[in-house]
Amino acid sequence: MSADILEEILHPKSVAVVGASDNPAARGHAYTRHLVVYGYKGKIYPVNPRYSEILGMKVYPSIRDIPGSVDYVISCVPAREVPDMLESCSGKGVKAVNLYTARFSETGRPEAAELEQEVLKRARKYGIRLIGPNCLGVYYPRVGLSFGYDFPTEAGSVGMLSQTGGGAAGIIRLAALRGVRFSKVISYGNALDFNECDYLDYFAQDEETKIILVYIEGVRDGRRFFTSLSEAASRKPVIIIKGGKGKSGTSAVASHTASIAGSTQAWEAVIAQTGAIPAQTFDELVDLAVSFYFLPPIKGVRAGVIGGGGGPTVLSADVCEGAGLDVIDLPGEIRDELRNKGVGIWDWIGNPMDVSISGGAEFTYMDMLRILAGNPNFDLLITNIMEGAFVTLSQKEATLTRLGEALESCAKLKEESLKPLLAVVGEGGPAIEDAGHWSWKLLTEMRTGLIKAKIPMYPSMRRAAEAAYKLSKYYNYYSTNLMSKR
Amino acid sequence: MSADILEEILHPKSVAVVGASDNPAARGHAYTRHLVVYGYKGKIYPVNPRYSEILGMKVYPSIRDIPGSVDYVISCVPAREVPDMLESCSGKGVKAVNLYTARFSETGRPEAAELEQEVLKRARKYGIRLIGPNCLGVYYPRVGLSFGYDFPTEAGSVGMLSQTGGGAAGIIRLAALRGVRFSKVISYGNALDFNECDYLDYFAQDEETKIILVYIEGVRDGRRFFTSLSEAASRKPVIIIKGGKGKSGTSAVASHTASIAGSTQAWEAVIAQTGAIPAQTFDELVDLAVSFYFLPPIKGVRAGVIGGGGGPTVLSADVCEGAGLDVIDLPGEIRDELRNKGVGIWDWIGNPMDVSISGGAEFTYMDMLRILAGNPNFDLLITNIMEGAFVTLSQKEATLTRLGEALESCAKLKEESLKPLLAVVGEGGPAIEDAGHWSWKLLTEMRTGLIKAKIPMYPSMRRAAEAAYKLSKYYNYYSTNLMSKR
Repeated sequence: MSADILEEILHPKSVAVVGASDNPAARGHAYTRHLVVYGYKGKIYPVNPRYSEILGMKVYPSIRDIPGSVDYVISCVPAREVPDMLESCSGKGVKAVNLYTARFSETGRPEAAELEQEVLKRARKYGIRLIGPNCLGVYYPRVGLSFGYDFPTEAGSVGMLSQTGGGAAGIIRLAALRGVRFSKVISYGNALDFNECDYLDYFAQDEETKIILVYIEGVRDGRRFFTSLSEAASRKPVIIIKGGKGKSGTSAVASHTASIAGSTQAWEAVIAQTGAIPAQTFDELVDLAVSFYFLPPIKGVRAGVIGGGGGPTVLSADVCEGAGLDVIDLPGEIRDELRNKGVGIWDWIGNPMDVSISGGAEFTYMDMLRILAGNPNFDLLITNIMEGAFVTLSQKEATLTRLGEALESCAKLKEESLKPLLAVVGEGGPAIEDAGHWSWKLLTEMRTGLIKAKIPMYPSMRRAAEAAYKLSKYYNYYSTNLMSKR
Repeated sequence: MSADILEEILHPKSVAVVGASDNPAARGHAYTRHLVVYGYKGKIYPVNPRYSEILGMKVYPSIRDIPGSVDYVISCVPAREVPDMLESCSGKGVKAVNLYTARFSETGRPEAAELEQEVLKRARKYGIRLIGPNCLGVYYPRVGLSFGYDFPTEAGSVGMLSQTGGGAAGIIRLAALRGVRFSKVISYGNALDFNECDYLDYFAQDEETKIILVYIEGVRDGRRFFTSLSEAASRKPVIIIKGGKGKSGTSAVASHTASIAGSTQAWEAVIAQTGAIPAQTFDELVDLAVSFYFLPPIKGVRAGVIGGGGGPTVLSADVCEGAGLDVIDLPGEIRDELRNKGVGIWDWIGNPMDVSISGGAEFTYMDMLRILAGNPNFDLLITNIMEGAFVTLSQKEATLTRLGEALESCAKLKEESLKPLLAVVGEGGPAIEDAGHWSWKLLTEMRTGLIKAKIPMYPSMRRAAEAAYKLSKYYNYYSTNLMSKR
């Protein structure tokens, strides 16, 4: 089973970086430094005939010169040197090589494709498995492997297999900013040896992984892929982007990872049948990762919405309905309760709730959250804390008070209620002269507070609504199709 | 003509704020302060029987007590006091009252609707025109009127009429962060006297306004609206959001501005016939405002794309094609030119261009921009400087160098070439512990630089592509339909 082999490979007792460097701009330096920074506990062997010491560690001219065995090798040498490098691994017990090395078949050149085949042949000869080539490899914070300098050192439960390395790094950072933590991420590029199915099978059975993200450009074996994706999707949420759908994307895929992209229609049909959840962009993938990471199951589409001010409230209704949610009329029992409590706007307020007509103290933001959360007609709640550019109030103190109250209320509700709660907090993007303003500091504090309270946040009502709808669809499909399979 | 009347109203020689306050959290304080801060040159009269001085200015018990005439009144008194307040305006030469005052027909209550009609009757009796009620009124930086404390004091050429006030403030801030400046913005709420058509007609003939943004919830006179919108759209780009499309949105509209929303289908048909450009969300409205503000006409859909790294490049192709752009094959003459110049990747690179295979010094980012801009087969260029979470490079120096080069190259290209150029710069959103990181400072510097170079920026490739497509459609429609009308 390749899953067992991968599990062993991902727990190396020693790691060599071939092409290690003392130039901070070089990947051979970064990989070496990451092992130290992320707390890798095994032996670290930098390899490069041009150096004797890097980051205070002894450097070996060749893998052959390393005393004892080497489990895992990260290759940063040029493509033409890879066959010899693999030969130097023979007899050293090397289980796997992560080929950061690129410029193989993705160049479209026959001689590079031949060299790639030679690399595969040689690896097989020596019993070495390959991750890559043309990839960034493994981020596994529990073990201390990383391919980015600013990924969280803290581990979580989201796994990812990705045919893009830079893109995977972008996804990790975007998701991390919204509170997601990862079990392990594998960037696998040209998929010369281990392929997408091997990785999918691995993540499907991996107990550290509760949610699987996939970025894929091409598939080697369609039938096996269907089986692997179905099996993975029957066990945990699998969110998948297929890169290279149209005319130009298909040709971009060829020059990126030498994959054959296949038609859009075929892909969409496959994904729909497996129970995996399709996404179109990194933003959407991250929205779904955040949603599954923080939210309990969403059982239906009936949404209670706190829309912010007047216009945003109107648009939030349109956007939620456009995304497939049902913004039901405010249930009569809520109106009765408000009337009984003497809330003057009992007949005026609706769903979505317009905060600007709430009447302040008589019907607080916390009251709104509680009354919606307590009503069984709502399957989920979305609150627009502050969409768009931050801070629409007239001055600092009022803003601090109101947003502090919103944050505190959301956190309190999260403790009191199991109702799925999504929060909208705008991003905007200040220029240098705006960045120091107190409102931007407040925005970062809001995000910190929401993450701490384990409340997922979205930069717009539309993105929150689209994610909520996909989750409800997933849990509905799951309960009617996937549960019965198990 | 109401346009002439509005022009006169918007240039008042004196402004009274009724319900002025020394409580910084009150709107009556904010309106008074804005007049000072935004440099209003006429006479300022705070009015409130409970104060004698606010912000160092003498306060009058009533409008009647003001010496001489008053052109423009901002009303912050409660709804029930408005009829008397209007009476106090009689004989003072008041041309218009901006009724910030709310709680009229939007409450859905018969007595409030009656009061609203009484207000209208009395205004007509005294020859006073009304902006509102239930609105934030006017932002006109050239004259010194504002309804937000942090809008730009600098003026520009974008005008907006909006039935939402808080939403308009959000739009102003979002657009301002991306470099847009406004001629004037009118938030008009319940449209009791002046209505959407009056404002549209005004902006259509206003020479300070080159682009018109519209947020509208309902229309009083469908036939006149069609005429006004067509006329405005034949003169300048009109970007319009219709709030309240579905079931719940329609009811939210009633409780927001007491408008009758009308069906989605009818609206979309009307907008398509007028040549105005529909948007669904504030984000989209702002994307289009930024695009029209900075870009020359886009004559077609053939896009040259610089996609960033491998995966993002693949997705940029998908996203651009999904938005309706044609990501054409790299023209043969570009390949020939690259080969002749000895660029090793002449046969590998495509459109979109993958920066990660560019080979660094032999084919720089500037080379990419220049070669795409110089080719007549491209109608527009989109460059992904950094989508998603910022900074995918291994360390600070390399990042500073690369992004500095990207910014400088874009600015230089903008000087050299008239080809429409759109830039993608991600937003992400840091938590408090991340916000101080150098990469976020760099991001704000990038934005400042792009704005200075008058290059429109978008937070994602998808949003850039969607905006570009709408512009090409507009200019195509314009040249075939609207030009012939004139």
